[in-house]
Amino acid sequence: MREKLKRKIDIGAGRVKPELVLKNAKIVNVFSHEIIEGDIAIDDGKIVGIGEYEGIEVYEMDGRYVAPGLIDAHVHIESSMVTPGQFARGIVPRGTTTIIADPHEIANVCGVEGIEYILNASEKLPLNFYIMLPSCVPATSFENAGAILSAKELEGLIHHDRVLGMGELMDYPGVISAEDNILDKIMIAEDKKIDGHGPNIEGKELNAYIAAGVKTEHECSTVEEMQNRLRLGMYILIREGSAARNLETLIRGTTRENARRCLFCTDDKHPEDILVGGHIDNNLRLAVKEGIHPITALQMATINAAECYGLKDIGAIAPGYDADLIVLKDLENFEVLEVYKKGNKVAKNKKPLFDVEVTDHSKVSNTINMKSITKEDLEVKITSDIVNVIKLLPHSLVTEKAVRKVDALNGVFQYNRNLDILKLAVIERHKSTGNIGLGLVEDFKMKNGAIASTIAHDSHNIIVIGDNDEDMLLAIKEVEKIGGGITICSKGKVLKSLALPIGGLISDGTMEEVDLQLKEMLDIAYNQLAVNKNIDPFMTLSFLALPVIPEIKLTDMGLFNVTDFSFMDLSFKE
Amino acid sequence: MREKLKRKIDIGAGRVKPELVLKNAKIVNVFSHEIIEGDIAIDDGKIVGIGEYEGIEVYEMDGRYVAPGLIDAHVHIESSMVTPGQFARGIVPRGTTTIIADPHEIANVCGVEGIEYILNASEKLPLNFYIMLPSCVPATSFENAGAILSAKELEGLIHHDRVLGMGELMDYPGVISAEDNILDKIMIAEDKKIDGHGPNIEGKELNAYIAAGVKTEHECSTVEEMQNRLRLGMYILIREGSAARNLETLIRGTTRENARRCLFCTDDKHPEDILVGGHIDNNLRLAVKEGIHPITALQMATINAAECYGLKDIGAIAPGYDADLIVLKDLENFEVLEVYKKGNKVAKNKKPLFDVEVTDHSKVSNTINMKSITKEDLEVKITSDIVNVIKLLPHSLVTEKAVRKVDALNGVFQYNRNLDILKLAVIERHKSTGNIGLGLVEDFKMKNGAIASTIAHDSHNIIVIGDNDEDMLLAIKEVEKIGGGITICSKGKVLKSLALPIGGLISDGTMEEVDLQLKEMLDIAYNQLAVNKNIDPFMTLSFLALPVIPEIKLTDMGLFNVTDFSFMDLSFKE
Repeated sequence: MREKLKRKIDIGAGRVKPELVLKNAKIVNVFSHEIIEGDIAIDDGKIVGIGEYEGIEVYEMDGRYVAPGLIDAHVHIESSMVTPGQFARGIVPRGTTTIIADPHEIANVCGVEGIEYILNASEKLPLNFYIMLPSCVPATSFENAGAILSAKELEGLIHHDRVLGMGELMDYPGVISAEDNILDKIMIAEDKKIDGHGPNIEGKELNAYIAAGVKTEHECSTVEEMQNRLRLGMYILIREGSAARNLETLIRGTTRENARRCLFCTDDKHPEDILVGGHIDNNLRLAVKEGIHPITALQMATINAAECYGLKDIGAIAPGYDADLIVLKDLENFEVLEVYKKGNKVAKNKKPLFDVEVTDHSKVSNTINMKSITKEDLEVKITSDIVNVIKLLPHSLVTEKAVRKVDALNGVFQYNRNLDILKLAVIERHKSTGNIGLGLVEDFKMKNGAIASTIAHDSHNIIVIGDNDEDMLLAIKEVEKIGGGITICSKGKVLKSLALPIGGLISDGTMEEVDLQLKEMLDIAYNQLAVNKNIDPFMTLSFLALPVIPEIKLTDMGLFNVTDFSFMDLSFKE
Repeated sequence: MREKLKRKIDIGAGRVKPELVLKNAKIVNVFSHEIIEGDIAIDDGKIVGIGEYEGIEVYEMDGRYVAPGLIDAHVHIESSMVTPGQFARGIVPRGTTTIIADPHEIANVCGVEGIEYILNASEKLPLNFYIMLPSCVPATSFENAGAILSAKELEGLIHHDRVLGMGELMDYPGVISAEDNILDKIMIAEDKKIDGHGPNIEGKELNAYIAAGVKTEHECSTVEEMQNRLRLGMYILIREGSAARNLETLIRGTTRENARRCLFCTDDKHPEDILVGGHIDNNLRLAVKEGIHPITALQMATINAAECYGLKDIGAIAPGYDADLIVLKDLENFEVLEVYKKGNKVAKNKKPLFDVEVTDHSKVSNTINMKSITKEDLEVKITSDIVNVIKLLPHSLVTEKAVRKVDALNGVFQYNRNLDILKLAVIERHKSTGNIGLGLVEDFKMKNGAIASTIAHDSHNIIVIGDNDEDMLLAIKEVEKIGGGITICSKGKVLKSLALPIGGLISDGTMEEVDLQLKEMLDIAYNQLAVNKNIDPFMTLSFLALPVIPEIKLTDMGLFNVTDFSFMDLSFKE
């Protein structure tokens, strides 16, 4: 330690040459909100000097911009369907050198072992991979997940050096009503951070939520919500993901005076959106396009997030900070030319310069544990031919309750080629309970086939949709056979499958491979099975089991009315 | 803990009444940089809600401004010459509810026991009293102090819950040259803060200083110095004290973009300046007068300082923060009407509403340990009648070297009533070494008397000045008799003394009492002993022994030339 300290001082003072110098850079200074021209002296992974330095190795920056590595303050990497290592290979080239991940999805399937897998698989990456512990597993009591995480289980993980605290407290009603099981989780967080997830809470309830210790919010969808939370001391995470995109709105609420309390996050992003649109660099682009000063935007992506989460060594370019640096072509499009992690060049021209080891995932594989399903299990029994159906809306996760007349025979729903009414089933797949929830869907518009998936928020049971029971059964058996994933079947054949062996959520391939397979399957869905082109069939399916998004959803426990938060009959009643 | 947490949530949610509500306040919001009208709900010392609340007790604010309690980020309370308790009674009514103190002066006299006394005496005050450990005792190797504090001694204190880190590293040459004893001190600070004191360092040396881990600077005297340090990641403490006043200059370097990295401090403030001019409220007044937005100024005095020193519970008005609050008449003069500490009203109309216990100070009393002095000891031996004298400058701590012809008899300096040349002596008083430094002073202009003091930066030996040896001897014996303090003697009589029994630095009286006695002594000095009215005789004396301020000073080891950092002869040489 003494030698390291002495060497830092000797290098700073110019008595000893550092390992590396980035010469003639336009340095983005997030402290003074300026661009400073100069050299950056780097040694042993740290920045040791700014000014004029000579190094053992020297990279000429030719006046290009150098900024601190970017920080994603809140992300569920499972949405990328790749492992932590492959996720790093996808986002580091976009300039992200630190993420704060909440492994909520895999925890819903594998519990503590899911979190431990993420921790192990993210250990040796050229990416600071911090974890917030999933605080609400299962997400609701209206579905069966693969695990129930109490404070007792989480306590064993909270002191891990990469665990920053307790993840989004999405059970905000539980917090506001001070339920014991939530208080237990808040209490074990002690001095660590607690993330929020409290859309639409206002007034005294918001005060109660914050008084409980919640410090951040990433679910704001209006400037007013943002301002009310910021005024009460919350940091605001401005989200731009695949499904939820709040940046354009919230950036209007970001002022020169309150920007220090604003950060960026992605929350959920699919492979294609990362590969094509980028990661936090995308937030920067949009923010500047909306009129934010580029340096202010970079502060939000760096020092502000570091301050919020108490990460003292990152987020700025100054002596003593980690040499996590990105080289930018300009401060408008934020094209990332090079990325340095602790002084090592880890990406160039949007390509990673590192490979990742495969982490043993045996403990999070073979996660499908279900009773075998027969055609009878898929029979939709109705007491009237007037039924409640889930009506899809174009490009939306929100559904509507519609009342339709369908064909029935001996109290059993019958398919009708002339009606756009498909059968939907959610099959519990964790504890072999045999639970099956059945429902009917309008506007998916699929012909001669079925699609099944083990990505079904938040419990990730098997969700399957089809216009005939044979293909539905086949699809269910196929995802079981491949150990979890997504499949399309038609006329008794499996057309294509994407295997997601890790928890039924994550592939063992690269982001590019997953993206390519999804594109092919999307093409099949649209062009061979005539799926409605105004919806993404896989994303839509994955959210049809989430009983917190209005208006009507299906879990393994049955048809759920989100409006009055209770289960409902399929058969319509006056 | 569970009950406390539950109660907070219940109160925030409006289900339970809080102990206290401040109604209809104009709340200064340091997060959104706004004024928000509403009530503040307070319970168990914490803020639990902002909005509309009813309380068991309700104080009507009638639309007056309520801001977070103020923070002094760097102060040596010894300069107030009162105990921590009396200091609190002096500054809390001015709105300061948190200080970060460096007990550097008493540590120079009493070592670890001096720091422990300050910690004990500041334990139960309605003031957050944090400590930075004195890192440079003694301050220089050109004087003898009462203690030598190595890393070993400091290590025993660094983990105290009110010790935030290592105090100002004033031996910046030692840091920059990476001297082992300094590295030892930096290393024990580990994750704690390290304050800087590095005026005039620039370029690579500044990088080295910061690379060593130094995080703050309070010695900036130019905007350029400030900017260079801020750009390299230092927080800037804008100082407005009794001797050093940098605010008017540095505030010009404070911008909307960099203000978040700027804080306020006083460093050293004398009783009269606090009682008349105020404390951090004075910094606010001046900053706003210089054109800073009042809320920005308040951010510098509150949340910015809290962030800099990692104080999570203070600096803002929001649920979860300590109820350290001040009621202000306006945001221009910042007159403090009331002060609340953890929800208790502790001051009103500039008067404290609390008393303080007397802390046992036996271990830091009777600190004078010296050989008895005779007239012979005061003989100034010179080899030539052309001598180097210390020439005082009006209203300045800086001195000039002047060459004068004086009377000599058998190689011994003789007083001359017609010349304004007084004798100055610094007598080691800690370890009875018998060290005496002798020198001559011009422009003090004293007649028929002597002044002695045990406040003599930084080693705090006895410093005495006079125009005759009899009064000088008497003054020395008097300060020894009273166990340290300041005295004025004339024509064989002690005219008046201020006893400073605690380390020879601190009185056991109130700030008002000390101020009154000093005023009386000042009057005697000016009007009975004809002391030059362009200098403060006591402050001037206290800095004449500090061998780091140019140009020529006197320590117990002799006459010191600060320009070439070496001792010099009294007798002039070509």
